[in-house]
Amino acid sequence: MRKINIAVYNEFFHERHDPNSAKVYPDGIHSALKGFLEKDSRVGSVVCATLDDHAAVLTPERLADTDVLIWWGHVRHGNVDDEVVNAVCARVVEGMGLIVLHSGHGSKVFMRLMGTDTRTLRWRESDDRCRVWVVNRGHPIAEGLGEGFLVPAEETYGEQFGIPEPDELVFISWFEGGEVFRSGCTFKRGSGKIFYFQNGHETYPIYFQPEIQRVITNAVHWACPEQRAYRYDLGGPNAPALEGPKK
Amino acid sequence: MRKINIAVYNEFFHERHDPNSAKVYPDGIHSALKGFLEKDSRVGSVVCATLDDHAAVLTPERLADTDVLIWWGHVRHGNVDDEVVNAVCARVVEGMGLIVLHSGHGSKVFMRLMGTDTRTLRWRESDDRCRVWVVNRGHPIAEGLGEGFLVPAEETYGEQFGIPEPDELVFISWFEGGEVFRSGCTFKRGSGKIFYFQNGHETYPIYFQPEIQRVITNAVHWACPEQRAYRYDLGGPNAPALEGPKK
Amino acid sequence: MRKINIAVYNEFFHERHDPNSAKVYPDGIHSALKGFLEKDSRVGSVVCATLDDHAAVLTPERLADTDVLIWWGHVRHGNVDDEVVNAVCARVVEGMGLIVLHSGHGSKVFMRLMGTDTRTLRWRESDDRCRVWVVNRGHPIAEGLGEGFLVPAEETYGEQFGIPEPDELVFISWFEGGEVFRSGCTFKRGSGKIFYFQNGHETYPIYFQPEIQRVITNAVHWACPEQRAYRYDLGGPNAPALEGPKK
Amino acid sequence: MRKINIAVYNEFFHERHDPNSAKVYPDGIHSALKGFLEKDSRVGSVVCATLDDHAAVLTPERLADTDVLIWWGHVRHGNVDDEVVNAVCARVVEGMGLIVLHSGHGSKVFMRLMGTDTRTLRWRESDDRCRVWVVNRGHPIAEGLGEGFLVPAEETYGEQFGIPEPDELVFISWFEGGEVFRSGCTFKRGSGKIFYFQNGHETYPIYFQPEIQRVITNAVHWACPEQRAYRYDLGGPNAPALEGPKK
Repeated sequence: MRKINIAVYNEFFHERHDPNSAKVYPDGIHSALKGFLEKDSRVGSVVCATLDDHAAVLTPERLADTDVLIWWGHVRHGNVDDEVVNAVCARVVEGMGLIVLHSGHGSKVFMRLMGTDTRTLRWRESDDRCRVWVVNRGHPIAEGLGEGFLVPAEETYGEQFGIPEPDELVFISWFEGGEVFRSGCTFKRGSGKIFYFQNGHETYPIYFQPEIQRVITNAVHWACPEQRAYRYDLGGPNAPALEGPKK
Repeated sequence: MRKINIAVYNEFFHERHDPNSAKVYPDGIHSALKGFLEKDSRVGSVVCATLDDHAAVLTPERLADTDVLIWWGHVRHGNVDDEVVNAVCARVVEGMGLIVLHSGHGSKVFMRLMGTDTRTLRWRESDDRCRVWVVNRGHPIAEGLGEGFLVPAEETYGEQFGIPEPDELVFISWFEGGEVFRSGCTFKRGSGKIFYFQNGHETYPIYFQPEIQRVITNAVHWACPEQRAYRYDLGGPNAPALEGPKK
Repeated sequence: MRKINIAVYNEFFHERHDPNSAKVYPDGIHSALKGFLEKDSRVGSVVCATLDDHAAVLTPERLADTDVLIWWGHVRHGNVDDEVVNAVCARVVEGMGLIVLHSGHGSKVFMRLMGTDTRTLRWRESDDRCRVWVVNRGHPIAEGLGEGFLVPAEETYGEQFGIPEPDELVFISWFEGGEVFRSGCTFKRGSGKIFYFQNGHETYPIYFQPEIQRVITNAVHWACPEQRAYRYDLGGPNAPALEGPKK
Repeated sequence: MRKINIAVYNEFFHERHDPNSAKVYPDGIHSALKGFLEKDSRVGSVVCATLDDHAAVLTPERLADTDVLIWWGHVRHGNVDDEVVNAVCARVVEGMGLIVLHSGHGSKVFMRLMGTDTRTLRWRESDDRCRVWVVNRGHPIAEGLGEGFLVPAEETYGEQFGIPEPDELVFISWFEGGEVFRSGCTFKRGSGKIFYFQNGHETYPIYFQPEIQRVITNAVHWACPEQRAYRYDLGGPNAPALEGPKK
């Protein structure tokens, strides 16, 4: 089995401008993600990109060699380069896995692949207790998580979330303030598998919680394509008939 | 547009043996359902069957003339007649709509149509506040319900619920005690539409709540087939070739 | 039941530049569509737009008053106004139905809503016999079509078609030359229903065939939303908690 | 990665009573399947059961140790032991993969898991050319099969096939006589993955064809659960509340 090449995009804005975020993620959310992903024996490499350098890092060549891309963004979605967006979406259709975290629901990449306005949801800055329930026990992304787990404090996301009906619903979150959220959803676009995961506010140490790390690691394994790409040619214009005329 | 013929099956056990249930539903849950359904202008007839008379009422002839069947049962699932179960499942495949309420999740009819052990769920006798959230705003079953509604006291159902992935998820319930539940789910089996709806414990006046009545009425409209049956013949053994041999 | 407002977009290029097409559709494909749609008792109005005037006709105001939009395009997809594309996609999410015909599979509108490269398919200019098989007998779009029907001569489309997995597959086409195609597919994006239908080459009189007219009329009924729009407000930033803190 | 334990059920009737079948599969279809499956490096063991001994072989203990069960049956579906059917269905829900071949579509096991009358289809004894098209290029079951492949002679199966909408459609078959068929379909029931595959008539050497062997081997890998079983306990009656009352 080949090693998995991962790329992580993190906007890296809050951690440099908001002291509450900087305290929790001094080296950025991407570094926290890279930190635990590199401990996984199936992972080959983890490359990080931020808003500042993403066009230089997430080149078509790099993407062609990436199995799974993880995406975290929030207040600077609009600044992401459209050519990168195009290249990412094309690579997903070709087979690259994509994991969209938390406020990445509003990213150009996710909006484009879903075809709806995925920014739509109810939300509240809070420190609500959040119970993440497994609703699909046999799913590889839920492996090792039992009935679910507790996140002690989380920003609240609530329905209705503006996604198309997911192919599979893996998690539903319960929030202390009365909301629910489809917090773990799978989609497929072309040959690429997509996983959206709600947890991960920038001012809480969520990406250091073992269950969260387990979810993301499981999702990387699940989203990794069997081949790095499923490129194929349709034979150009006017494919010949396979069967002769009956007349 | 033709009028909708409805049949309601209610086990009618609790209401006769449990004073708490009898106080709320003195004439049985079926009478409460019939009461509001008959007020709908599109509804033609509402026929009720209970455990005692269900084999006499839910005959193949009656079912053939029924557009939507509503099912409520709990502690006497095992006593339901297997021939009725066979006939109901065959009629659903032929196009009859089916609405399964609350503890009807463990009925033979629902188990058979789902193909899994749908008795599986977490539950608790409680008087939890239950918030029913709409997660599919444009769905006909959610019509008129806005973001969702509150049931002041309800028995708690929690995930994991042992259903196959629903075709559409319409509602998710939040419970005060920390649980979530996929409380409004659609499925299709053959030409028949199926809706499972979680709310409706026998000791709470849930079926008198306007929002609940709205959900069930909406579901009846949604589940009603355009034709009363989609019977068709496949031409007997050895259907002739449509195209001549090419050789 | 309110009347259905329909808008038809037709590129109207072939019919003015290709004599073979002009002979079959002298007034354009849109006129052929309008012709039979207006005969349906549930249809209120049918407004037509072509490449030349589409930005003036398909205004946000017009779209807001449209229940179902039908889209036919082929060699001038790139010339469609991006603001119209944005408005159409937003209206679909809000609840407007969309029916995409034949080579409309490569339109910006369809690409955007699907999130994949829907131009991908195998094709051949041909006069293949095409058998359209119903694979979902109880579906409203298949109403009245029995097992399926024959199109005597059609351009050949073959798999693999680059769509995401459809919510429902209604038709599969068989082609004399050896191909198959998922020719009737439903999708939902937000509150809007989408139907893709393969048949309809510009040089064959396909839109005059009764079964084809039946499919498109059925699809209009199916795609029409119960309300003209499902606009809703999420309460602005920071929705208040519904349940008090437990602490 | 652990080795995969496979069990094969083959009715083994035609091969002993029909000379045309005996000529092609002198040791039974199960032996042909076992023959190529055992060559796969990930396969641990392949145990075969026939109608004569299936109750003795497919015991609950054996099934508990089985990752993937393959099912071929045709004219003796009614003779399969109901306790075996119960045990197989329960094991699928628990996580065991199931691959149903050809006329296995009418088996009790498949009928039960689907919840519909899956015997429904159009068919014809024929030697039609059958083109199996891949409609889901990135799917693991289609790995290595390109655009699809040709089966030189096959019994004809045609739509409408009485299955519920598959989770994923992987193959569609084209038949010379004018039919199409959803020939490769995936479903999930509980934690178990199910694959139906149409090809495999008892009088044609289909199970010796490399592409067919590739499909079945791919399907075994795909259907194999990550854990051998996902047993779990829901904590008995009346699961305690997780969150204290708010009042």
